[in-house]
This record gives sequence, C-alpha cells and structure tokens, in this order.
Amino acid sequence: MTIQLYCFGESGHSYKVALGMELAGVAWEPVFVDFFSGAHRREDFRAEVNEMGECPVLVDGELKLTQSGVILDYLAPQTGFGGKTEEERRDILRWILWDNHKLSGPIGPARFMQNFLPVDKHPDEVIRWHQGRLRVSYKILDAHLADRDWITGDSLTNADLSCCAYLYYPEPFGFNRADWPNIDAWLNRIADLPGWKHPYDLMPGRPSDRGL
Amino acid sequence: MTIQLYCFGESGHSYKVALGMELAGVAWEPVFVDFFSGAHRREDFRAEVNEMGECPVLVDGELKLTQSGVILDYLAPQTGFGGKTEEERRDILRWILWDNHKLSGPIGPARFMQNFLPVDKHPDEVIRWHQGRLRVSYKILDAHLADRDWITGDSLTNADLSCCAYLYYPEPFGFNRADWPNIDAWLNRIADLPGWKHPYDLMPGRPSDRGL
Repeated sequence: MTIQLYCFGESGHSYKVALGMELAGVAWEPVFVDFFSGAHRREDFRAEVNEMGECPVLVDGELKLTQSGVILDYLAPQTGFGGKTEEERRDILRWILWDNHKLSGPIGPARFMQNFLPVDKHPDEVIRWHQGRLRVSYKILDAHLADRDWITGDSLTNADLSCCAYLYYPEPFGFNRADWPNIDAWLNRIADLPGWKHPYDLMPGRPSDRGL
Repeated sequence: MTIQLYCFGESGHSYKVALGMELAGVAWEPVFVDFFSGAHRREDFRAEVNEMGECPVLVDGELKLTQSGVILDYLAPQTGFGGKTEEERRDILRWILWDNHKLSGPIGPARFMQNFLPVDKHPDEVIRWHQGRLRVSYKILDAHLADRDWITGDSLTNADLSCCAYLYYPEPFGFNRADWPNIDAWLNRIADLPGWKHPYDLMPGRPSDRGL
C-alpha cells in the first residue's frame, strides 16, 4: 500500500518529509489538509488523525505517525538519510530538535502572520520579535555551514531536510538568502539534487489558490 | 568520571535532564552557566561548549552532547526512561519534538520576558501572543492525560520529563495549574516520585540570587 502523507503546500514541516521521500524515490501520495479552512482544528481531525492538530501525518498501512522528526527517523531505512553511525544519528537528532525549536518553529508563525493574515491584523511587534530571534538562528546555521557541505556527515541527511524546508518558500518573512552565503550555497546544493522539487510543486495547495 | 551537566536553575531544558538523572540515581554534577551575564553568548562558549549557544550540555568523559532531547535519549540505557518498545520510543520522540516546538519552546521566552526583563521593557503584545499559543498546547496535553497517568506507556518516560519541566517554575507566565486538572494531577504524580527535586533545589542559580 502506498504511503500517504497528510499535508498542504504551505506546510514546511510537511515539505521536510515529502522532499525526503521524493529525493529517495519512496512511493507516496498526498492527502490534502485544508489548513486555511481550519481542517486541522476540527474535532474529527484531532480524534482520528492527530491529537496535536498538526501536519504532517504519515500513514503506512496500519501505522500512523506524526511529527516530521519522527517520520524522517522512521523512513531512514528506506531513504538512507538517517546517518551512518550512532554519532551521526545523534547529531541529526540534535539539529532536528534545534530546527523545531529555533528555526522552522518560529518561521512557521512569522511567515503566517506576515503573509496569510489580513494586513490590518498583522501583529507587527510579534513579527519583529520572531525576525530578531530568527537572525540568531540563521547566524548559527550559516556559521555551521562555513566549512561543510552538509549539516552532518558527507551527504544529505534528515538534518538538512528538517532545516532547509521553510527556507525555500518565496513569501517574505525576514530571511534573505543573500545575507547568508553559506546557507545560500547549501540551499542551492540541495536544490541541485536529482528529484528536488519546490514545495508548491510537490504538495497540493498554494497561496494563489486562495487569491494571494 | 562523573557526568557533568552545564546548566543553571532557571533553565527548564536543563531541568529535564537533571531531573531524569536524579530520579534514576545517575551520578552527575552541575557546571554553572551564568546565563544572565550572557555566558552562553560569548565566543568561547560557542567555540568550546555549544555552537548553538544553549544549555544543557552534557559531558560524559570524551563525549559532549547538546539538546535536551538528545541527552535524554543518550541516557535512556542508564535511566530506563526511553520506552520499552520501538513504538514507545517513537511516541516519546513525538512528544519531545512537540514539547520543544509548542510547549517548552514558547514557555522559555514568555517566562523570560515576563519575569526577567525590566518592567518597562516587557513586550506585552509578544507575551500575550505566546500565552495564547500556549493555551492551545496546555489543552492538548491536558486532553492527552485525561485517561492516562503518563504521557507514554505505564510509567515515567523521557516524554514526561521533557513536557513537565517548565511547568514547575513559580514565576508567572500564564500557566495556572488549577485550570488544567489532568496536567495538575500528573505534575503531582511526578513530584511524588522518590528523589524528585524542584529545579531551584537541583541546579545552581535562581532569581533571588539576582535580587528578583
């Protein structure tokens, strides 16, 4: 049975998993979650799909998994992106946790507030606060990539997939690739891999569907 | 050689690890990080201790690990808090990731801004935004604990350690135990375990040291 991924185009967390499966040639199909109509907040979604009210959710036969970091780890035997040693495995987890806390975590709401809320409802102070925190994170990642091609080891891993995902989106949220040359080169390196696709070409749903 | 933990009393992320070792009877000693003097932001700390500029950091002989979720996983063979099956291990990781992203993640800065900044520098809009997001998280955790004693399985695991840590701190950040009866009962359950200690009794540094 083909793996199903509950996702939508604007979800960077979903993109981490979708991109990993696509790059590794794992067969999968998307199940569209209408996030912008609040589908993830409905009681049936929480009861039957994910009590945390989030995407992505992966369904593989009888197994249902949530949290992109868990799903990337589960898929590692198929994708080969889980690291080659116990030390690499721990280092990948370290960057996935950091990403959830300090990179993708704050980018999600910052990008949402700045682009997907009506202009008169932009909480400017909150957006600026996120952008300030995120500059610290971009600096850490850019410094880490100064003398390496990949976050961990000598090829793409789940650490790269987790950290890169939101950085490909075109909507402005305070991240300018030109300001971070090592991140910029690394994003180009990933995008040059055979099979790479932009999030809006890989998953259903994009802002223009909603007239944005 | 005794395990060393770079930490400070106000760090809920450090407390997750310190409490786990204490409950399991693992020998450890704290290395105080003077966070409120900016020790974690200094170049020598980033170069020699943690490029991410964060606590906790665990040193076990030649091994140095960062990110509380990685450290909890590393210690699991000694503590027994890593789950009994592969399914439990994945479920623990799911809650640790959720906690880093949606619970401990936002509590850290919300509590800092509300309690440890000068009153005239409180960014009220940002604090309120965090408190609103956190109410959604408290609701998810409270619902999850409605019919179970522990987050995963039938005893304390790293999932409980990760999620509980910030909720024991006395400084106000918008969390009131009385509003969340299942969380309240679970926090009492953990605090009743032999060896449990409050964060300020387990790690060096507390607000009163700084006249707060």
